[in-house]
Amino acid sequence: MKVLILGAGYGGLMTALQLQKELDYNEAEITIVNKHSYHYITTHLHAPAAGTLPTNRVKIELDDLIDREKINRIQQEVVEISLENKSVKLKDGQILVYDVLVIALGSDIETFGIKGLKEHAFVIRSVNSVRLIREHIEYMFAKYKAEPDHSEYLTFIVGGAGFTGIEFVGELADRVPELCKEFDVNPEVVRIINIEAAPTVLPGFEPNLVEHAMEVLKGKGVEIRTNTPIKEVTAEGVTLANGEQIKSGTVVWTGGVRGNKIIDNLGIETIRSRAKVDPYLRAPGYKDIFIIGDSSIVFDENVKPYPPTAQIAVQEGEYVAKQIVSLIRNGEMKLKPFKFQYRGTVASLGRREAIGTVGRWKIKGMTASLMKQLIDNRYLYSIGGLPLVFKKGKFLG
Amino acid sequence: MKVLILGAGYGGLMTALQLQKELDYNEAEITIVNKHSYHYITTHLHAPAAGTLPTNRVKIELDDLIDREKINRIQQEVVEISLENKSVKLKDGQILVYDVLVIALGSDIETFGIKGLKEHAFVIRSVNSVRLIREHIEYMFAKYKAEPDHSEYLTFIVGGAGFTGIEFVGELADRVPELCKEFDVNPEVVRIINIEAAPTVLPGFEPNLVEHAMEVLKGKGVEIRTNTPIKEVTAEGVTLANGEQIKSGTVVWTGGVRGNKIIDNLGIETIRSRAKVDPYLRAPGYKDIFIIGDSSIVFDENVKPYPPTAQIAVQEGEYVAKQIVSLIRNGEMKLKPFKFQYRGTVASLGRREAIGTVGRWKIKGMTASLMKQLIDNRYLYSIGGLPLVFKKGKFLG
Repeated sequence: MKVLILGAGYGGLMTALQLQKELDYNEAEITIVNKHSYHYITTHLHAPAAGTLPTNRVKIELDDLIDREKINRIQQEVVEISLENKSVKLKDGQILVYDVLVIALGSDIETFGIKGLKEHAFVIRSVNSVRLIREHIEYMFAKYKAEPDHSEYLTFIVGGAGFTGIEFVGELADRVPELCKEFDVNPEVVRIINIEAAPTVLPGFEPNLVEHAMEVLKGKGVEIRTNTPIKEVTAEGVTLANGEQIKSGTVVWTGGVRGNKIIDNLGIETIRSRAKVDPYLRAPGYKDIFIIGDSSIVFDENVKPYPPTAQIAVQEGEYVAKQIVSLIRNGEMKLKPFKFQYRGTVASLGRREAIGTVGRWKIKGMTASLMKQLIDNRYLYSIGGLPLVFKKGKFLG
Repeated sequence: MKVLILGAGYGGLMTALQLQKELDYNEAEITIVNKHSYHYITTHLHAPAAGTLPTNRVKIELDDLIDREKINRIQQEVVEISLENKSVKLKDGQILVYDVLVIALGSDIETFGIKGLKEHAFVIRSVNSVRLIREHIEYMFAKYKAEPDHSEYLTFIVGGAGFTGIEFVGELADRVPELCKEFDVNPEVVRIINIEAAPTVLPGFEPNLVEHAMEVLKGKGVEIRTNTPIKEVTAEGVTLANGEQIKSGTVVWTGGVRGNKIIDNLGIETIRSRAKVDPYLRAPGYKDIFIIGDSSIVFDENVKPYPPTAQIAVQEGEYVAKQIVSLIRNGEMKLKPFKFQYRGTVASLGRREAIGTVGRWKIKGMTASLMKQLIDNRYLYSIGGLPLVFKKGKFLG
């Protein structure tokens, strides 16, 4: 049986690793297709974006995780999927066929139609996109030193105060003193402005935790502006909905997530390019096509969509792998519909500060920061064992 | 007696340090004005520009060199000098008066009227300007990784193949493999193109040394194009005089040196904003105004101007200081007209390669590279003694 997995993000990688663990050699012909030779820890990307963590710490070579005797790996971009023909077209023209397909192509940036955003804003999306942010930030410090009349070079605007936005500004605020020292810049010239259209930051967190987060970030010098939609991004900065213009050399957009546009062409119902899957995470009407991670959208018992997180993608990957093993061995799936187990969330606010919900507990400060690292390291352990934890893990610095 | 020194480059700093050495406390009231709090080793700037040396290795805080009990230091920019009124105006509005003036305001970039050069080219001129180049180069690597269709991001054009141009491409060629490794870039994508209008590189060096230099640089992958004037620099790259366009994300101009424009307003004869001084390095017609370094132009016995080097500036500074001591103690100068002692030149071609002329010897390779370091360290020793050699010196790596 040919099992084809598209994408090696949280969902795709977990599917592959679980299959690798449960299946014997030659029980199935498994192929994973991924654009890069590596998996990256998306939930950490805010740190190399700010420059507080080296890029290689969030990259894990796939060949260090997968057993090439069990899983075939193709480094290519997926350009088209035909559910009808059971085929997948890659960028190099190659056509792949499958018996079972797992679509885990991740997310794209949601611009909400904001003008100029695609052209002028940076995004926290991939290893390459965050390396660009880090280098751009340093470049702005160098540019300011060469043209000291342009204080706007050191105004950093972050659009969106969800998880990624908040974690990034926390990290950037920690990085600024180092950069000021390196480039001999007066820290008072530097501004970090976090702009959010919604009335509050970090939607989904308890109000008192949100308040704590705001205090911590303000204490680090971050300006937070809620209820402030951005109308346009230009080469000079942003224009707000109220007409106000803020000059800035760097706009980083963290405002939203949508699915990969390939999902829109599958011929099934989608919401923001994310497929509405059946309770078994399958494309409706297909018995052997699974769509997971940010490529699909799953609803809770109150018909509210779960937020697109690594946590749910990992659980979906594990679930789908088990179903596939059963399909291979029994010709049918054995498991009940997918059920998400919420294990808590911790948002980092930079060095030694975080807020979170773990079980019934609300945590903050050092405790939350430690918990965050525990969660991060647990993920590394689950995909690569202790060696990977030592190689890529975070330990309180 | 009030002695005012404008500029703390090679000429100005050497004047100040020599006065500090020879004069007792309270023999004169000495003031040095400099834009930055530090002196920088201009002859090394190509290395931090390429990123092969940290910026702080070419910066020396003036307060580590001068004795503030003997020399008053003002960190300001000079905006106007009135020889008539014996006064100097600073950017903050302050007016300084003097009995003896030493003008050592260094150089500016000569664009030879090339269109777009001021706007679009980087220059190797100051600590801030080379830090900008280094950051820009890294930024281009990051940008290429984010937009791999744009190979021109990794085309680096260096205009001018004189001393600075050649030393910079040598250094950059050494840096490229490291950058390729750091950013996962195929080295074959990177181009370094050195463009020179004259028929040869490194004018003034023996033809066989020039040939050796060309071979070394070509061996490192540098493309060298002589007899190739640049017509225009744009945001997209350069247009050559023959109409050919080369796309590039980075143009570094090293093509020429002229004096500070303030020199043009002194009311004395200048050539490219460099004052034609009398044989005692004085402004013609003035007994107490010395103009040295790149601010003036000095001719050899064949009425050919000496090239604007650190070597001549240092000797001029020492000479002028001795004349000033004599003016203070005897009311008149004792020395004969200034005579430049040519002590040889070595041009670095990157790691462990250089060419040079020392006395009657033509040297190249490791020998020249060692000699270069000896010369560099000797300068450090002359201004700051052994501690400075250990702190900022170069030792063959």
